[in-house]
Amino acid sequence: MVIGGVAAGLSAASRARKLDPQIEIVVFEKTPYISYGACGLPYYIEGQVDKLSTLQVYDVAYFARERNISVRINTEVTNIAPNRREVQLASGERVTYDALVIATGTRRRFELPDSFPLDTWRDAERLHERIASRPGRNAVVVGGGYIGLEAVGALRAQGFRVTLHQSSANLLGRKDPWLTKMVLSHLERCRVEVHLESRIKERPAADLVVIASGLKPNVGLAADAGVELGATGAIRVTDRMETNLADVYAAGDCAEALHLVSGAPVWIPLGTTANKMGRVAGATVVGARERFTGVAGTSIVGVCGLAVASTGFSESMARDAGFQPVSTTVEAMDKPRYFQGRKTHVQLTADRRTGRLLGGTVIGESSATGRVNVIATALQQRMTVDAFGQLDLAYAPPYATVWDPLLLAARQLAQAL
Amino acid sequence: MVIGGVAAGLSAASRARKLDPQIEIVVFEKTPYISYGACGLPYYIEGQVDKLSTLQVYDVAYFARERNISVRINTEVTNIAPNRREVQLASGERVTYDALVIATGTRRRFELPDSFPLDTWRDAERLHERIASRPGRNAVVVGGGYIGLEAVGALRAQGFRVTLHQSSANLLGRKDPWLTKMVLSHLERCRVEVHLESRIKERPAADLVVIASGLKPNVGLAADAGVELGATGAIRVTDRMETNLADVYAAGDCAEALHLVSGAPVWIPLGTTANKMGRVAGATVVGARERFTGVAGTSIVGVCGLAVASTGFSESMARDAGFQPVSTTVEAMDKPRYFQGRKTHVQLTADRRTGRLLGGTVIGESSATGRVNVIATALQQRMTVDAFGQLDLAYAPPYATVWDPLLLAARQLAQAL
Repeated sequence: MVIGGVAAGLSAASRARKLDPQIEIVVFEKTPYISYGACGLPYYIEGQVDKLSTLQVYDVAYFARERNISVRINTEVTNIAPNRREVQLASGERVTYDALVIATGTRRRFELPDSFPLDTWRDAERLHERIASRPGRNAVVVGGGYIGLEAVGALRAQGFRVTLHQSSANLLGRKDPWLTKMVLSHLERCRVEVHLESRIKERPAADLVVIASGLKPNVGLAADAGVELGATGAIRVTDRMETNLADVYAAGDCAEALHLVSGAPVWIPLGTTANKMGRVAGATVVGARERFTGVAGTSIVGVCGLAVASTGFSESMARDAGFQPVSTTVEAMDKPRYFQGRKTHVQLTADRRTGRLLGGTVIGESSATGRVNVIATALQQRMTVDAFGQLDLAYAPPYATVWDPLLLAARQLAQAL
Repeated sequence: MVIGGVAAGLSAASRARKLDPQIEIVVFEKTPYISYGACGLPYYIEGQVDKLSTLQVYDVAYFARERNISVRINTEVTNIAPNRREVQLASGERVTYDALVIATGTRRRFELPDSFPLDTWRDAERLHERIASRPGRNAVVVGGGYIGLEAVGALRAQGFRVTLHQSSANLLGRKDPWLTKMVLSHLERCRVEVHLESRIKERPAADLVVIASGLKPNVGLAADAGVELGATGAIRVTDRMETNLADVYAAGDCAEALHLVSGAPVWIPLGTTANKMGRVAGATVVGARERFTGVAGTSIVGVCGLAVASTGFSESMARDAGFQPVSTTVEAMDKPRYFQGRKTHVQLTADRRTGRLLGGTVIGESSATGRVNVIATALQQRMTVDAFGQLDLAYAPPYATVWDPLLLAARQLAQAL
């Protein structure tokens, strides 16, 4: 039995089915919407995705027919009774399980009257309808994380003047003044007004207000059943997605993961992680030995056309985690000028004691994706800056420069260590 | 003293100067051309680079003024006398050295009457002049390595019908039938006629013939002086670029490097490697301890717009090196369809005994660069396929898919092992 029919839940169900053709699998989803790429929702608002159904990967019929998985939509689980291995549905119906995967995702704690979150299929529908029916001129976005910045881009594309409020001093949930400054200066060029350290208590006076702050793991159901939470507030799980309760597993945005750099549990809800955790949960349920080793916190977001990609720790974050961090930033061309090369910015952080690379940020064009992924690979392998500077990276004029910006940054950082 | 004024030679000179402001540095270059990106030459023929000087990074005056490095162009070294620590120039002049860096690059062994190589500045000038003065309709390119395929693209862009002859059964110098087939099928779409296992002995009947085969390390001068060559035919060096002779170092395309996957010496002449080796040679000369740990054989080439990137070993190459290789290929979208995602092809090879990743190829759009670099990083770290499949790679709809093609390939390969 799986609770939750999006990324982690359906990955778990599908993986279990793949490894065991015999078991019975049921998935409960409280909304009518399953198996969709929630990360695409802002692009529906932006107009890049022409209809929401584009974001749906499979439907209920597909799961029944092709995977012999029963997905029950509009079906909310209201209680878990682990002693009786039983859940209760909103209808009052009780259903027993042999193994339970909790994949209940996130919830938004913060609400304002007449405002729009952008987390779910239904949220996107509501916001889209509102923009279509009452076109406005001024919009406020509350929350400067990924969803907030994607919402800013979407609303700009829809012709709104946009003001962004972020409660902390940092954007993108990353304690990194350099990153925040880079993003701020781009937002300014895109004529977005930004207020940092701005705690919104009442609905701002604007034609449209989008709420993208206050995201929390959705763990009420689990906690009520006695499932242990970690210090992050998300469900504590092993590397096989086991909780403290026998035969109860958790995966996706409601669960913690180990950070590959610090080794400590973190809560970084992302679709990539949810899918991977779901697969491991599905394998564990049927007795296969797979592991989810952790996250580097790798992410990329498009901010009005600028790619902002990070992985691991910034200098501040590394200091908080007990390292002695040293950082360096370089600005370099991502390709030769004669192939329309553009400026790319690379920041690398390493530990002075060990020379180990702790994190990095790449800001620029779409090539930031590959560069941040190289850093993420290095973090998983606990590479030193010296080893990183030796990397044999690909070069040809249409695609890169002979000294990749990553190598230039590594050279500079090695000198600073 | 440095012999050779392009990538490795000038990197060595510049690194030595950076680490030691006092020593006297002289660089001998037999041509009038120094410090240029030879990898850009095909793009001058193609018309992407409007004048050759665009490819020059610095000139003689810059090196004199900014780096206190004396670069003597049009100055050929004809003999090295290591006993006397002395070289003789074509003019008869003798010059002594305390330390000598040999960076003599490559030479082309293969020639045909009235044909054009594309290795040097002068080659590019000659070919460009020929095309401008005698526009033709039919061109033949001899050699299906990187330069050959870039020449094919350049000549197609100049309106030639192009026929490519490759002496072996494989393209791009890589023993990999899958890769060759993928490239062949793209060349066919671009209406390029290709003949494999075609050994050209006489000048083909065509308006223009470009020679891009038979590249060898240019080691005559070194070998005559008693510098030891390896089995590859290139100069054997340590990881500090030392040769068998005291105070004689070698770097760049004339030298071998260790392959990170097999640990054996290989000869893979590339600009990226030349620059790195040059830096280490420059450091060694002034007593600094830097190392060049080896190459993964990472490369990328644009074949009429298709990015073809490889690193490490193909299945055949791995078998030759004594591994028990297993390969898998996947075809997947590099981004969501609603962001104009395009098909990308990923091939991964691993060792059945150890699960270690041995190599990979990525074919598709420019995003192939970042993906092959992730594989190259994994190879340097001797990652297993299982660990590779756990990588925390960046995802957002404008830039990637939630399951990166690399992860899909790793999953499939893990099952096949």
